[in-house]
Amino acid sequence: MRIALDAMGGDNAPRETVKGAVEAAGVLGFEIFLVGEKYSLERELDKYKPFPGSVRIVQATEKIGMDEPAASSVRKKKDSSINVCVNLVKEKKVDALVTAGNTGAAVCAATLRLRTLEGIERPGISIVIPTLTGVSFLIDVGANITPKPEHLLHYAIMGDVYMRYVLNKKEVKIGLLNVGEEEIKGTALIKESHRLLDSSSLNFIGNIEGRDIFTGKCDVIVCDGFSGNIILKVSESIADTLGTLFKREMNKGLLTKIGGFLSMTALHNLKKKIDYTEIGGAPLLGIDGVCIMCHGRSTAKAIRNAIRVAGEFSVHQVNKHITDQVKNLVS
Amino acid sequence: MRIALDAMGGDNAPRETVKGAVEAAGVLGFEIFLVGEKYSLERELDKYKPFPGSVRIVQATEKIGMDEPAASSVRKKKDSSINVCVNLVKEKKVDALVTAGNTGAAVCAATLRLRTLEGIERPGISIVIPTLTGVSFLIDVGANITPKPEHLLHYAIMGDVYMRYVLNKKEVKIGLLNVGEEEIKGTALIKESHRLLDSSSLNFIGNIEGRDIFTGKCDVIVCDGFSGNIILKVSESIADTLGTLFKREMNKGLLTKIGGFLSMTALHNLKKKIDYTEIGGAPLLGIDGVCIMCHGRSTAKAIRNAIRVAGEFSVHQVNKHITDQVKNLVS
Repeated sequence: MRIALDAMGGDNAPRETVKGAVEAAGVLGFEIFLVGEKYSLERELDKYKPFPGSVRIVQATEKIGMDEPAASSVRKKKDSSINVCVNLVKEKKVDALVTAGNTGAAVCAATLRLRTLEGIERPGISIVIPTLTGVSFLIDVGANITPKPEHLLHYAIMGDVYMRYVLNKKEVKIGLLNVGEEEIKGTALIKESHRLLDSSSLNFIGNIEGRDIFTGKCDVIVCDGFSGNIILKVSESIADTLGTLFKREMNKGLLTKIGGFLSMTALHNLKKKIDYTEIGGAPLLGIDGVCIMCHGRSTAKAIRNAIRVAGEFSVHQVNKHITDQVKNLVS
Repeated sequence: MRIALDAMGGDNAPRETVKGAVEAAGVLGFEIFLVGEKYSLERELDKYKPFPGSVRIVQATEKIGMDEPAASSVRKKKDSSINVCVNLVKEKKVDALVTAGNTGAAVCAATLRLRTLEGIERPGISIVIPTLTGVSFLIDVGANITPKPEHLLHYAIMGDVYMRYVLNKKEVKIGLLNVGEEEIKGTALIKESHRLLDSSSLNFIGNIEGRDIFTGKCDVIVCDGFSGNIILKVSESIADTLGTLFKREMNKGLLTKIGGFLSMTALHNLKKKIDYTEIGGAPLLGIDGVCIMCHGRSTAKAIRNAIRVAGEFSVHQVNKHITDQVKNLVS
């Protein structure tokens, strides 16, 4: 398994990206191509001497910052680390790419150069989220903020494939995110998407509401990228906010302080359960290639887990299954 | 202060609505008109004998269920409790109405019969949310799922007024919910709304992201009703889910169990801080009348707090200030 890592992407790059790559090469035995500014990457790599021989550097002279405009940067910065990663995928020199950099730029570069899979119009970013009963799959969280009903149908198909082939779920239940469960509720987009999903061969359980997302009511939650992005960021922020408020309350008295100390294992386990760094990257589905996006704040652990996910995505031939499914649906 | 309470609305009506009304009458000294089926309400009221004389029953022979279609039910069920409440406001027999019933039906009944305030095209449901630094105001959470840019501008004005006059905030910062902070990001709706807000006299701080909602970055968060509704429901559900997961972890070992016991005050305080029943109802802003919506699951405490909010809304002449502000903006 050969992975191109955008070593310059993310708030903590290249420190955490290089560390994650070295760990992943050691644990998973993958070949990792660290893409970025040669000198900075060599300096980082020096910290891990002797590092696994399967980690090598591929020079990219430019990088796209987290706040730069996506489309124009991808066009202008031909030799940016994300563009070089995408080219490696295109030329089949690697099996997958992983990036914690500017999400918009990654989606743009991948879509422009790798194109979408046959039958798929627009890619979607998906994430695996922890629920009360296990995990669910949320798609799209921001690649496509004004989707058409057909796009949402394709997201459902791709989610179904991912759940079945990568996460080994036998019966995949699909839900459509809406402001109410009734068919008559929602925007024109939702109503038409509901009709498409309902007449497809997917196991569509109907509309679900915001309150159902984390209960595990369905396995794949389909939504527009605008709502999905906000859900993702709100969820992270609530977990952080509750944690902060809880700590503040805990520090108010001696008994609660002791209580907090004794509860530490429980808190730690809970944190682990909802920690994005454990889950390991968000697949950009629908692209003719394997592209795993990471949180901008990614630590080495998050990068390592994303590299693992990239490997699983490749091994399970997710893209082949998606095109098969889409063909079935049309024929 | 005279309040009409939709005594038949909500999952726990009329038990909790009547209890909340009796408590509010006692504590706040308001006159409460319990609107609903006379016989059931009398039976509930009997539990609180002798109840305050300021609580009286107004007969409504029909009610609209939580899952009934909003518009058609409001039209067909002329004598439903929500319609009777709205009529009492219209005829100025009460100063405000409070309902925990079918939200869509309440918005529809209020809009049809009371009409919107001069200069306001569409009402918005707003909620006060707890943040790391205090509270913020989120509008709209579901009255208007396909708003126009002008509607979002009006929501900002109304939120500004509410924050200043009811919540005594001196400098009100307004933020527009988007998938990124940059002006160039977002849907056509968001870009045009951004332009309108930016050229208004409001203290507009620009786009905010999902992660900023609970940090107190701004005082009023303006969003479309689709996103707002999902945020509201996701937030509640995350708090519940984290609570459940935390309890499960706590029960796994003796030490953590003891820890949990000692942390109970902290947990209780935290729960109180984020508990919707403490906050007390969501004003439907933009209607020519005072209409406070409650959660369908409302308990007596939530009803009592919503009645208090209805009183504050009236006393502070929110609607007069809104029309003044809209006039200022136009002239």
